[in-house]
Amino acid sequence: MSKAKTKEQPVILITNDDGITSPGIKALVDAVKHLGKVVVVAPDKPQSGMGHAITIGHPLRMHAVHIFKGIEAYQCSGTPVDCVKLAVDKVLHRKPDICLSGINHGANHSINVIYSGTMSAALEASIESIPSVGFSLLDYSIEADFTGAQKYAALLVEHLLKKNYDKHLCLNVNIPAVDETLLKGLKVCHQAYAKYEEKFDERNDPHGKKYYWLTGDFVNYDKGKDTDVWALKNNYVSVVPVQFDLTHYKLKAVLEKTLTKLN
Amino acid sequence: MSKAKTKEQPVILITNDDGITSPGIKALVDAVKHLGKVVVVAPDKPQSGMGHAITIGHPLRMHAVHIFKGIEAYQCSGTPVDCVKLAVDKVLHRKPDICLSGINHGANHSINVIYSGTMSAALEASIESIPSVGFSLLDYSIEADFTGAQKYAALLVEHLLKKNYDKHLCLNVNIPAVDETLLKGLKVCHQAYAKYEEKFDERNDPHGKKYYWLTGDFVNYDKGKDTDVWALKNNYVSVVPVQFDLTHYKLKAVLEKTLTKLN
Repeated sequence: MSKAKTKEQPVILITNDDGITSPGIKALVDAVKHLGKVVVVAPDKPQSGMGHAITIGHPLRMHAVHIFKGIEAYQCSGTPVDCVKLAVDKVLHRKPDICLSGINHGANHSINVIYSGTMSAALEASIESIPSVGFSLLDYSIEADFTGAQKYAALLVEHLLKKNYDKHLCLNVNIPAVDETLLKGLKVCHQAYAKYEEKFDERNDPHGKKYYWLTGDFVNYDKGKDTDVWALKNNYVSVVPVQFDLTHYKLKAVLEKTLTKLN
Repeated sequence: MSKAKTKEQPVILITNDDGITSPGIKALVDAVKHLGKVVVVAPDKPQSGMGHAITIGHPLRMHAVHIFKGIEAYQCSGTPVDCVKLAVDKVLHRKPDICLSGINHGANHSINVIYSGTMSAALEASIESIPSVGFSLLDYSIEADFTGAQKYAALLVEHLLKKNYDKHLCLNVNIPAVDETLLKGLKVCHQAYAKYEEKFDERNDPHGKKYYWLTGDFVNYDKGKDTDVWALKNNYVSVVPVQFDLTHYKLKAVLEKTLTKLN
């Protein structure tokens, strides 16, 4: 992203999945607005757990909002992925230099990268050849302290705007919910095999009909020290580079030998 | 899945993203019901493009339905991924021996694996240590001819119930929309870098306010012969093994050298 050093400012697209009014997105805007021209296109309501959903069956709405001082911003009726697509085609009319998503209220480490609207927005940018980062703080509270997360967001985005790693670069960054003085720095990791073990809470409505709430316990099956879960437990800011080629190449080699015999 | 050869029948969970009343899911039930005990848990309405979305903010409903002769079936108000979770916890009370998703009306090759509710249901099963296959026919029509797709679904599922590849096995199978006599057989591939180039169709509502429909042109940037797009164009049934570890290991090695210097 050599543009960062020309007189033209880099364009930084910001979105999230908690919705445009969440404190986390304001924290991200404030953390990076000195690094370029920030434009916000974010959902008009919470969209947590939307994964890589897109809106096909009905149209989208988008309106300008004036809630970030001096920053061009739009709320959109769609999913986080819709926001990225719409921002590129109808707001920026170009690819931004970088796309940032978050700061999410709550963790998106391990398998949660797949369910997360925050990370799906970042991955969508990466598919569109826009380098991207999703930021998540391990604190669901609306009153969460984003100070440490903001410090590392600024540090990382400044670095990425100078370096030209890969047009498909996508980073999943999680920040422990501890005082910033306790943070030990960035640690590059792989995604842990850790997940929620689901249990549905079965209830009866006032008419005697059943309904189910998704709940679960988080279990880490991955005992390695090279994972995001380990890094976060040890007060590191975890950085997992994420890819959108889901091909399982090891299994591909096995299946090439066996499945062709079925023909 | 050694149970296939004991007197206990293998349990085959079937879901989809087009909804429980779509012809594609009936075609899949009919294709494999001789191979085990089939149980259907599928969305009560179309859920295309839902990706790996889960329902967090409101509860789910699930009702028994009698639309497949002699087959236990339930419609669920949630996403395809919700259906898999709910089926395991509240219907089967165990992991099925295999989870099948589809047959989807329309392609899910290349990058579409990420947006597809069909494939997200299969991937969810794989995360839950249930081998899975998503089937998609390259024909969006409600009148689509599933004969060829059914033939390969039966062949593949029978094979997978005998072999024990991997508890996380997840296959993305697409079938060309040609007469079954023209199909050249299974071809194991990798996911092509081919995607929709989005253009939003901007319109005005009767009150003069703008709204946007997602549209786009499909472009294949991947000229290899080892891809699902190539295989389908050449009348092969494409089989892409899919993984849920999204870590980009090549970039991880690069970033380990550079990002740690930022600390």
